[in-house]
Amino acid sequence: MMSSLLLHEYSPSGNCYKIRLTAAHVGQPIERREYDILKGETRTPGFLATVNANGRIPTLQIGETFLPESNAACLYLAHGTPLVPEDRFDHADMMRWLFWEQYNHEPNIATLRFWYGWVGEDALSELQRANLPGKRSAGIEALALMDDHLSRTDWLAAGRFTVADIVLYAYTHVAEEGRFDLAPYPHIRAWLARVAARPRHVPIDA
Amino acid sequence: MMSSLLLHEYSPSGNCYKIRLTAAHVGQPIERREYDILKGETRTPGFLATVNANGRIPTLQIGETFLPESNAACLYLAHGTPLVPEDRFDHADMMRWLFWEQYNHEPNIATLRFWYGWVGEDALSELQRANLPGKRSAGIEALALMDDHLSRTDWLAAGRFTVADIVLYAYTHVAEEGRFDLAPYPHIRAWLARVAARPRHVPIDA
Repeated sequence: MMSSLLLHEYSPSGNCYKIRLTAAHVGQPIERREYDILKGETRTPGFLATVNANGRIPTLQIGETFLPESNAACLYLAHGTPLVPEDRFDHADMMRWLFWEQYNHEPNIATLRFWYGWVGEDALSELQRANLPGKRSAGIEALALMDDHLSRTDWLAAGRFTVADIVLYAYTHVAEEGRFDLAPYPHIRAWLARVAARPRHVPIDA
Repeated sequence: MMSSLLLHEYSPSGNCYKIRLTAAHVGQPIERREYDILKGETRTPGFLATVNANGRIPTLQIGETFLPESNAACLYLAHGTPLVPEDRFDHADMMRWLFWEQYNHEPNIATLRFWYGWVGEDALSELQRANLPGKRSAGIEALALMDDHLSRTDWLAAGRFTVADIVLYAYTHVAEEGRFDLAPYPHIRAWLARVAARPRHVPIDA
């Protein structure tokens, strides 16, 4: 019996979507509360004092406690289900993709999606503009690494559908909104189709 | 009975140190192989084809398989030990700090340590120089968040010493090499001393 769950979120965020997608796969209902990040609603004194001192969504509220970090929330929801491998190596290998997602994938692919789709190309700061080429090439490197890996396996870790596939699906399937062309990555495209075909799958705008 | 373990590393890296520190705490011997990252030894075709396609250390070799991502390697080593909480929330809360470390702490605090200590201030590129103020303020935000959290608890998660403390100790205890002053953070300094006083602790240069 789980406490009531409330997702503090900005729904178009891939980091929020991955939590909803995990909840759908484990059949766990969650309530949702929307914040407008563009209006600073996650930086108010009240938000910082209670929901997340880091000023970011998503945060998963579990009863009276708060769990920030999207991938930690996915792991919480998937705890004890087949989405989390029990084998020692397979478990660590799944975790490897979750850390890689936050270090090598999200800061490039999600950030460019946000810059182009939310900030707007004309409104980018000089510093953001200076960082575009580096983030573009790092994002391409990340996609190439995924494509190469998925040329040898149907799922990212443990030979089966795990939290790693959910977490990396979130921003990869909308990479083109960050102007990353997925045409050169046939193995990624086939994997995206496999993830979307899973029973209980929900789209990002559900 | 674990397979033989070989850490592919650059020993001054905090990401490599956290793996050695975890191994020390669980009493697991590991062999070590050193690469000079400044000479591109982790970007050779051989390294990319076998050790880590992402061209980075550390990678933990377990028998004939390779596990990149420092925090995943720590979790592998600590699997089934008291360093990893079993309780569902405590486990996710520990994971929260591990993801936060890779997203909010390492890219700022470890990067400035590397830029000042290895690249050298005079050799920084124009883009690195442009990113200094943002990384400085994000690093300070990260330290302030940790200090606030540690004002209320002795350990980062689960009310006890876990992998989260090991992982965040690695770059926090050398933050001054990135010119982050720890004087304003008494709770961090007390926590660093608690971590260093644990039985089996090893320093970064061991």
